[in-house]
Amino acid sequence: MKRYFYIVIVSVLVFQMGYGQIPDKKLSNLMPLPKEITFHEGEFVITRDFSAGIQENSSKRVKKAVTRFIRKLGEETGVFFKQGFPVSQKRDNVLFKTSYDREGQLNLFEDESYVLTVSPQGIQIDAPTDIGVIRGVETLLQLVHSNSKFFYIPSVTIKDSPRFPWRGLMIDVARHFQPLDVIKRNLDAMAAVKLNVFHWHLTDDQGFRVESKTFPKLHELGSEGQFYTHEQIREVIQYASDRGIRVLPEFDVPGHATAILTAYPEIASKDTIYTIERNSGIFDPTLDPTKEKTYEFLAAFFKEMSDLFPDEYIHIGGDENEGKHWDENERIRKFKKHHGFKNNHELQTYFNIKIQKILKELNKKMMGWEEIMSPDIEKSAVLHSWRGENEGLPDGESLINAVKLGYHTVLSNGYYIDRMHPVENHYLVDPHPKGVSLTKEQKAKILGGEVTMWSELVTPTTIDSRIWPRTAAIAERFWSPATVINLNHMKSRLEKVSLQLEKLGITHIKNANVILRNITKENDIEAILTLSRVCEPLKNYERNKGGTEYQTYSPFTLFADACTSDALDAKKFNDVVLRLLNDPNDKEVRSNVHQYLSKWSSLSSDLDRFDNPVINQVKPIAVNLSALADILSYCMKHNKISSTQLELFDKHIETAKIPVVDVELAVIPSFENLVEHFKKYEKAMNN
Amino acid sequence: MKRYFYIVIVSVLVFQMGYGQIPDKKLSNLMPLPKEITFHEGEFVITRDFSAGIQENSSKRVKKAVTRFIRKLGEETGVFFKQGFPVSQKRDNVLFKTSYDREGQLNLFEDESYVLTVSPQGIQIDAPTDIGVIRGVETLLQLVHSNSKFFYIPSVTIKDSPRFPWRGLMIDVARHFQPLDVIKRNLDAMAAVKLNVFHWHLTDDQGFRVESKTFPKLHELGSEGQFYTHEQIREVIQYASDRGIRVLPEFDVPGHATAILTAYPEIASKDTIYTIERNSGIFDPTLDPTKEKTYEFLAAFFKEMSDLFPDEYIHIGGDENEGKHWDENERIRKFKKHHGFKNNHELQTYFNIKIQKILKELNKKMMGWEEIMSPDIEKSAVLHSWRGENEGLPDGESLINAVKLGYHTVLSNGYYIDRMHPVENHYLVDPHPKGVSLTKEQKAKILGGEVTMWSELVTPTTIDSRIWPRTAAIAERFWSPATVINLNHMKSRLEKVSLQLEKLGITHIKNANVILRNITKENDIEAILTLSRVCEPLKNYERNKGGTEYQTYSPFTLFADACTSDALDAKKFNDVVLRLLNDPNDKEVRSNVHQYLSKWSSLSSDLDRFDNPVINQVKPIAVNLSALADILSYCMKHNKISSTQLELFDKHIETAKIPVVDVELAVIPSFENLVEHFKKYEKAMNN
Repeated sequence: MKRYFYIVIVSVLVFQMGYGQIPDKKLSNLMPLPKEITFHEGEFVITRDFSAGIQENSSKRVKKAVTRFIRKLGEETGVFFKQGFPVSQKRDNVLFKTSYDREGQLNLFEDESYVLTVSPQGIQIDAPTDIGVIRGVETLLQLVHSNSKFFYIPSVTIKDSPRFPWRGLMIDVARHFQPLDVIKRNLDAMAAVKLNVFHWHLTDDQGFRVESKTFPKLHELGSEGQFYTHEQIREVIQYASDRGIRVLPEFDVPGHATAILTAYPEIASKDTIYTIERNSGIFDPTLDPTKEKTYEFLAAFFKEMSDLFPDEYIHIGGDENEGKHWDENERIRKFKKHHGFKNNHELQTYFNIKIQKILKELNKKMMGWEEIMSPDIEKSAVLHSWRGENEGLPDGESLINAVKLGYHTVLSNGYYIDRMHPVENHYLVDPHPKGVSLTKEQKAKILGGEVTMWSELVTPTTIDSRIWPRTAAIAERFWSPATVINLNHMKSRLEKVSLQLEKLGITHIKNANVILRNITKENDIEAILTLSRVCEPLKNYERNKGGTEYQTYSPFTLFADACTSDALDAKKFNDVVLRLLNDPNDKEVRSNVHQYLSKWSSLSSDLDRFDNPVINQVKPIAVNLSALADILSYCMKHNKISSTQLELFDKHIETAKIPVVDVELAVIPSFENLVEHFKKYEKAMNN
Repeated sequence: MKRYFYIVIVSVLVFQMGYGQIPDKKLSNLMPLPKEITFHEGEFVITRDFSAGIQENSSKRVKKAVTRFIRKLGEETGVFFKQGFPVSQKRDNVLFKTSYDREGQLNLFEDESYVLTVSPQGIQIDAPTDIGVIRGVETLLQLVHSNSKFFYIPSVTIKDSPRFPWRGLMIDVARHFQPLDVIKRNLDAMAAVKLNVFHWHLTDDQGFRVESKTFPKLHELGSEGQFYTHEQIREVIQYASDRGIRVLPEFDVPGHATAILTAYPEIASKDTIYTIERNSGIFDPTLDPTKEKTYEFLAAFFKEMSDLFPDEYIHIGGDENEGKHWDENERIRKFKKHHGFKNNHELQTYFNIKIQKILKELNKKMMGWEEIMSPDIEKSAVLHSWRGENEGLPDGESLINAVKLGYHTVLSNGYYIDRMHPVENHYLVDPHPKGVSLTKEQKAKILGGEVTMWSELVTPTTIDSRIWPRTAAIAERFWSPATVINLNHMKSRLEKVSLQLEKLGITHIKNANVILRNITKENDIEAILTLSRVCEPLKNYERNKGGTEYQTYSPFTLFADACTSDALDAKKFNDVVLRLLNDPNDKEVRSNVHQYLSKWSSLSSDLDRFDNPVINQVKPIAVNLSALADILSYCMKHNKISSTQLELFDKHIETAKIPVVDVELAVIPSFENLVEHFKKYEKAMNN
């Protein structure tokens, strides 16, 4: 019987708590929330004497993870530990101990559970596998708090395990190549929020990004020098494995294949000269599924890649092949007729079956985007559900179809973070579809989800700011109980997690400033930074109409690139306006609204002193914002709006709604709500 | 005869201009200043139609450099170029052309000169070698200016070549390992300021950082997993070569060898168990120069490294061997006696002669720190002069001795940037010693200089902020005419160059903010950022007394790590105080001083809301600063200082002088000068 007084927090209650309820401060840095958490009285204080132990013959994974933990704990607390490395836990006075039963395998369904107990006397993590231990270590790091005098970890018992076994982040390195350090820091961040699949989209029309020793022209002609060598691939796989993350490579065939065909046009469906694509969109170059040569090529290629990538799955893409070149090619048309294929989908299925066979011989299972679905594909395949409203289809339809056909499936529809939607849009998407009745078996076929980071509009400088922090919230969706859905709690934790991510090397905050300094050409970015915090990049690829505005090598050092979805100040302002509308007499809220308005009021003149073509294009946004803030400030002061002011407001708000430099002002609805309020308020007062 | 009106700027005049003279705005981004520069009327406007040409069969180096140029120009200007890659300059309408006579070799004394001409019609770079072309391209990028409507490059003729052929930056990756991306971004920055030797300090007591296939225990046991593979080394060499930079590897022997002896204790001078060193300082472990095995080992090792590193020089260290283990070892003592060596220096010379022979057989020349100097060392060796006042020796003495003995030499004394001195201390050190008469031949033996970045107190997060921007100014010392010594002009250009460096990926500005967010644990860092801009890390390793306060794995995420030498606001404040003392009635200056004081006045209370052990340790600095600023504000307003105030001032200034959290307040002398001023002023008024 433990001797502390138990403060039991029933998870369901905490996680579903409503607006206004204040969650425990001790949860404030945690994401994803664990399955079960019970805080006790007291805390473990972090001092110079902290020491971390590992069991006899501990796996390298645990040794490294605990070493990283000690390092991060030191950096977080500024405490100079006497003992900078893990020690044998047989020693006396080891304060943090880890134990596990067996080394985990980086396979689907591997046990990732752990139990973490913290008491004033010490810390203990126990898990069936070493992967569980490293998940627990990440939780532990998120439990560090401080008071004036010391840093501590609250006494707690956590029993945790993931809801879904497949929790992925896909990074497209084809459209914009992402060097090794980008990949590594994102793996660090993935580990911090317990994602376990790094889906590496390695090939596309715009580039072939992996060295091939079998077909060297692939990287020589298909990458413009931007590819990963085998040694680098192995380095990433090791790095991921150290963090309990699988690496799932994708080689997109038969479409999205311009880069492959630039190197080996002999397996193309059309006899032409191919060059690497520089625009975004869906293109026609496609492998020829009727030639034996194509399969010889793929058999040899996949053999090489199977040796390189240890994961049991290989993703073959298979998406967005419109088959134009198939239709144009008489030989292929004849082939279809000869085989009785009614359409290109059946021809592609023929192709996929052959690929699946090739992979099977290599002991690999096939994964593909939902377009590969067909009853003739073996059930070992995992279908990757991605299409939805944006593609004119019901959201998640393919997911349901897949499980009903008996396939395992992974959901990405709803997790397209490159579309620049606010975090809640993704957070509330559950891999288990709502309003659909599925059997337990069917539900179990839903393995989890994957966040997709397509890279048409990002460079190594900006990619982190598109992935993070929103992906941390999605990671919570994949890990935590389905009942964890409180938006306000998630958002407040996300702010903290965002800073944790930065400490891991994620550049989402700091690189925005770099871009803004490039725009002002000065160290002083206060004004433009303030502006950037109410502006959001256009959503749904509006920024890149038809995929032709931005090419691969266009500059991504513009104002829109420094802006993010969930614009920081806009979010806060919108919240406080909501509160004002609820209680127009709340003085604190009024003063808060006023502060924002007066800050924005001077923005236009603050920016005046900067003068170059880039910043001059941004200024109109500030002009409108300042004008609108002026009007609303006046209204706030006088609790009314005059007809002249209203006219001026309408004029500016109409201009403000027209996107400039690929961003939109994210406070417009709140401005309109405020004005509506004053209109009503005045009316009420006049009556 | 060209048709523009010539605005000839005679370099010597510009470069030596005194305080108050305003240099041409067109020079404002340039560093190092070129040898000869003549501006003309008009400018080349950068538009979408910009295109860059390369000559037939252009070297890869030029192709890549011009491609990088196009990319950077796009990012700088936000212009979407139609033509994103270099084209053949035989084409019509190629606006920027490059030509050279032969491919340059990355050897000492290679020609790096170039001629750059810009007219409204186009840009041309001509050079004897492709290395000259890429130097010119960097100059061109620093010439980009803007007005409200467009970006442009002013019409100009530049004839440029370096003053010294050896312009280096040494990075110590042993004390703190620096991953590949740190090295690469620093190579980018080096190229931008025309440095041409990357001296890679690869081994030391704290780590052996290169994979050895011949002696794998070196990296397996000597690096804690932090080393470069051969492929990575080759990648860096290629990266450097693309930028016209030589890579000079250093393997420090016979001292600084703890990591080597951890792996191979059989070649040590003392029979003991070695473990990797975690403190800083000078340590005893030393190779045994009396054993044949040692030379067999080194012969095989240097063979492997000679194959890996193409440069004609290998740096063998040779510094700071106190020979304690030699004295302790009876066999070694006997050996010395037997050979008639009077001291350990003679024994080390015996060792060095054997190494020089090994290297010679490998077609390599030897470089070593000045301690290797001895008349018996062949004259092909380059002596690396580093000791000075700090080591109780006259600054640069070894440099003079070396050239008098007929050796080539490279100066690092005066360029120890890790000592955290202000930029001018380094900038004014000339590799040609002042007040010493040397023959022309002797002078020619002085090859140039090397900036040394020892890494005891830096991590990958902070290293850039210790190297840059100061190294840009030193690079100017190595490249530009000796007459370029105007401090104010240098400093104003350095501010601009600092932003250019950031665009290349240098993290000196942005990472300070990351550390400050780690300290506040919040996004809001305004107050602590303001404080950091008047604080400087302690100089001369005072921060690490005796090398024992900070170990390899101590936290370097503290306030001192966010501060830099040449603290930004301190520098500006000190300047404006000087101006005030010159003219106490200058209203603009008074108001400027006042602004700083009132900003600092509120700092202490601004920091109040933060409360954790790390920031609480920083607060005393703010308390003193705010108190002092309060007093001085009052004095400014009333033009006098009362005795009570004076007493209070003295009290606070004395406390403020005691370093807290390893930083010093960099405005103290200005505060004292101001008070002196008020004391005098009051006196004068009283008389």
